[in-house]
Amino acid sequence: MSDGSAEKTKDETGAPPTFSEIGLEGFAPYLFNRISERWNTTIREALKGSELTTVRMRALATLSARPGLTINELSVLAVCEQSTMSRNLDALEEAGYVRRVPKSDDLRARELYITPEGQRALDAFWPAMHAHHEALLSGLEEREREQLLALLNKVLRTIRQNPY
Amino acid sequence: MSDGSAEKTKDETGAPPTFSEIGLEGFAPYLFNRISERWNTTIREALKGSELTTVRMRALATLSARPGLTINELSVLAVCEQSTMSRNLDALEEAGYVRRVPKSDDLRARELYITPEGQRALDAFWPAMHAHHEALLSGLEEREREQLLALLNKVLRTIRQNPY
Repeated sequence: MSDGSAEKTKDETGAPPTFSEIGLEGFAPYLFNRISERWNTTIREALKGSELTTVRMRALATLSARPGLTINELSVLAVCEQSTMSRNLDALEEAGYVRRVPKSDDLRARELYITPEGQRALDAFWPAMHAHHEALLSGLEEREREQLLALLNKVLRTIRQNPY
Repeated sequence: MSDGSAEKTKDETGAPPTFSEIGLEGFAPYLFNRISERWNTTIREALKGSELTTVRMRALATLSARPGLTINELSVLAVCEQSTMSRNLDALEEAGYVRRVPKSDDLRARELYITPEGQRALDAFWPAMHAHHEALLSGLEEREREQLLALLNKVLRTIRQNPY
């Protein structure tokens, strides 16, 4: 098991290390994908029997934290293709969970808001999601959680600045 | 922008914080999903025009780091459904990139190995993948990369121990 020190960027000759030299545990994208996949599977299973799906829950959660987003912004933040988000927003609006308000400075654009009914649906799922979140991070001490969040936010800021 | 301190687990009354109190930047699964999605999109685009797909590249990379896996193990480590992996292994075997060897202690089970041809196909893509990996982590100093890898491996070990 790597402690991270396998993450060499160059060997003595200046050549980049091979993938097998880095190893799975030294390759951050592998770790991101394993952890994301497990989280998403957990949430999908936890949502079974509820009225929400992963996309709809993400839309409500994102709008509860960031009211007034456009559909473009919401799609990025909820990690969902815009066409898929659009269909799900129609359903959420029909259920009375989301409302669209014309932007004051551009009447063709719409701002999205969670309604009190939408907030109640999200609140009903939140204790389960919070418990899964605690379980996911249960191996970390409080100080390590803060370190992890700070590092992940740094990586996300890098991604945002670069065109990929 | 959170520096991680928003990751409260309990407020003064002992109630868990709401999602909007934690906020997107304080919610690790959001960050994992954003980063994974961006990485996977980057790699999918980088593989365009090559002979490999994401699943096949992941299979070869995983087998180069961990020779002798079974298909079950490979599917978990490559974060791919087993039925999808099975179809892709057939294609990789046909291309001469992977070979299946009966296990000495259980002739019904097969161990998977990357062939020299498979290693060459992986090596041809590796400089591009390595450059994208460097770009992903370019906002972190060497010490921070090591911290991140150590923390991600801790989270992954927690996931492995828990049935979710």
